[in-house]
Amino acid sequence: MKKIKVPIYELSKRIRTEKPVVHHLTNWVTIYDCANTVKVIGGSPVMAHAREEVQDMVRLASSLVLNIGTLTVDFVESMKLAAMGANIKGIPVILDVCGAGATQLRDQKCFELLDKVKINIIKGNLSEVARIAGKNVRTKGVDATHIDVDIMELASSLAQKRNCTVVVTGKDDIITDARKGYVVKNGHPMMANIVGTGCMAGSIIGTFAAVEPDLALSSAAALSLFGIAGELSAKSGAGPGTFKEKLFNHLYSLDRKTIDKMQKVYR
Amino acid sequence: MKKIKVPIYELSKRIRTEKPVVHHLTNWVTIYDCANTVKVIGGSPVMAHAREEVQDMVRLASSLVLNIGTLTVDFVESMKLAAMGANIKGIPVILDVCGAGATQLRDQKCFELLDKVKINIIKGNLSEVARIAGKNVRTKGVDATHIDVDIMELASSLAQKRNCTVVVTGKDDIITDARKGYVVKNGHPMMANIVGTGCMAGSIIGTFAAVEPDLALSSAAALSLFGIAGELSAKSGAGPGTFKEKLFNHLYSLDRKTIDKMQKVYR
Amino acid sequence: MKKIKVPIYELSKRIRTEKPVVHHLTNWVTIYDCANTVKVIGGSPVMAHAREEVQDMVRLASSLVLNIGTLTVDFVESMKLAAMGANIKGIPVILDVCGAGATQLRDQKCFELLDKVKINIIKGNLSEVARIAGKNVRTKGVDATHIDVDIMELASSLAQKRNCTVVVTGKDDIITDARKGYVVKNGHPMMANIVGTGCMAGSIIGTFAAVEPDLALSSAAALSLFGIAGELSAKSGAGPGTFKEKLFNHLYSLDRKTIDKMQKVYR
Repeated sequence: MKKIKVPIYELSKRIRTEKPVVHHLTNWVTIYDCANTVKVIGGSPVMAHAREEVQDMVRLASSLVLNIGTLTVDFVESMKLAAMGANIKGIPVILDVCGAGATQLRDQKCFELLDKVKINIIKGNLSEVARIAGKNVRTKGVDATHIDVDIMELASSLAQKRNCTVVVTGKDDIITDARKGYVVKNGHPMMANIVGTGCMAGSIIGTFAAVEPDLALSSAAALSLFGIAGELSAKSGAGPGTFKEKLFNHLYSLDRKTIDKMQKVYR
Repeated sequence: MKKIKVPIYELSKRIRTEKPVVHHLTNWVTIYDCANTVKVIGGSPVMAHAREEVQDMVRLASSLVLNIGTLTVDFVESMKLAAMGANIKGIPVILDVCGAGATQLRDQKCFELLDKVKINIIKGNLSEVARIAGKNVRTKGVDATHIDVDIMELASSLAQKRNCTVVVTGKDDIITDARKGYVVKNGHPMMANIVGTGCMAGSIIGTFAAVEPDLALSSAAALSLFGIAGELSAKSGAGPGTFKEKLFNHLYSLDRKTIDKMQKVYR
Repeated sequence: MKKIKVPIYELSKRIRTEKPVVHHLTNWVTIYDCANTVKVIGGSPVMAHAREEVQDMVRLASSLVLNIGTLTVDFVESMKLAAMGANIKGIPVILDVCGAGATQLRDQKCFELLDKVKINIIKGNLSEVARIAGKNVRTKGVDATHIDVDIMELASSLAQKRNCTVVVTGKDDIITDARKGYVVKNGHPMMANIVGTGCMAGSIIGTFAAVEPDLALSSAAALSLFGIAGELSAKSGAGPGTFKEKLFNHLYSLDRKTIDKMQKVYR
């Protein structure tokens, strides 16, 4: 793999100019962080899940982020309706398979969504994505379980099977649409020490997807930006409370020079 | 309009002394911020939405804040029950028409609430309030859409029609009960760069309404206080993460001298 | 009572080594804070409430935290299912009786849980616990109401009746399993000035309970750690926004020397 340059700054600028509405049906734990992440990078987040309004709301949106972190059966029904609306409008649908592999309900509902509506990006940590790819792996709650596989191969085969982009977050982020693959080496271990960074990553991916139709490229750009913000936030060695505050500061203010210097994307 | 002095500090002090319970049925995105805002200015927030308990809970309260940000049909039914209880007790009911104009459900449910229970303060951004006033405007998610109207006239006519106080938040906040109008010029653009400040404004308005029966006056005082805290938080030029932390610090610690010097309320 | 030394650091270290999954069914106001608290002290939080998955999820867990802060009837049904699973697995169940005494629904549902499943730790502020102990006290929302009782006696009699550990949080925290009692004198008044510290305390208690079967001891250790973090966070005299950020920093980084020097546990 070779280090390449992806147009992170250019896409960021498009987000700030176009202010795309990013519609979420997400979990109740990190819902604020998801919304605020979209906001500070220049998008317009909207969280709405009533089955009577999701199709109305998604018509205003440029992308749809689904996250099953605190799913219920009814909530997934609303997700389906919203995704159908997104499919008709032709905007990208991101599915964060949060906690897949932890319970039967999560697995079933992920498969149901993947079978009944068009998902454009599947995003999760290694054990979650492995479960969705059909591996017999048990996720320990919502934290990743280590398994020994070639991640790019796993992701690529799932991308081919589901005709979508697959994003596996971790120390290195792996992104592929089966035709091409990216590895993003930005990020900092402190990001794994606080709740919310996984979900925030999903929301950033969703916001970049709203302005760039090449979803593997947009996802790589999104995760590199997020990782750079994480690296800068960790610089002063602050604890996790301070780190999170800084994460929003840096996501808000990253300039072209810093992005160009710090991005570590390989293809 | 002339600059006037409103008793912000005096009302703040009453809040700290009386510690009014401010009952919320609000959205899941900013629910923490709503509660914490009430808390740091000295009130006692309580969030409760089960239809079996809302009337019991509202009996303990001095005001009721309704916010439809993540509404469902059932949730609005609980709002109605809570509001009926508040109406009987004679405490003010604040309705944040969050996202009105974005979906039919939001419009319908706002009108249903306004028709079936007594709402004492309608609060929203310009496009939301315009929709509630009957204008044919489409809100882009939950962010304000620009429309070209005389805001005070619009607010005043809605206040007259609904026999209530109307608050339109924005660069300048417009407040009127049809008999008198206030313009609050405090605040800072950074407040629009993070998620939650709109909802927090509703909770501050609700807390001030709990101690002052002149609801236009109490709302002007509330928004001036909030705006002053925003101005002070932005002073050091910090990013949005740091800004929000400081917002809670300043709301907690504003003293009479600072308030008197900084308030910008016009009538 | 005599000052004693409890193995706070040793239990903290076990948490960091074993990374116990702490399953929550909690409220929507402080759900992020609950999760993040578990995370920064080294545990693995998971929030899941769908009745179809709670028993599946609790099988992965080392303790279960129930918090009725924003209860509904259905939500409590899920709590029962999760608690039954926890009872079968033999892991501790913590019930935060948040808002008990404020509404009939809260009282009924607490008693229902206590009667139908095994609760290992009852945790609340004085007026909440007094209500659960059968006193005729009305809680003002979710903030403690002062009542004049011997707290240790009240807690001990409830612990005996329900055959469990009882934790009463307040200026001094009182913990007893009817056989032995602890008083924890750590903490800082600023902790009562922000929303969430009560719920965070429940989550810390739940995380310590996951690694130490003596639940009175583990609860005393948990609250002393939390109080120490609060004292350190308040040291610089910062406002409530900054205080909360620091609370996460200190919970994350407390070392043996600081803990040993600052702990104030009496027996």
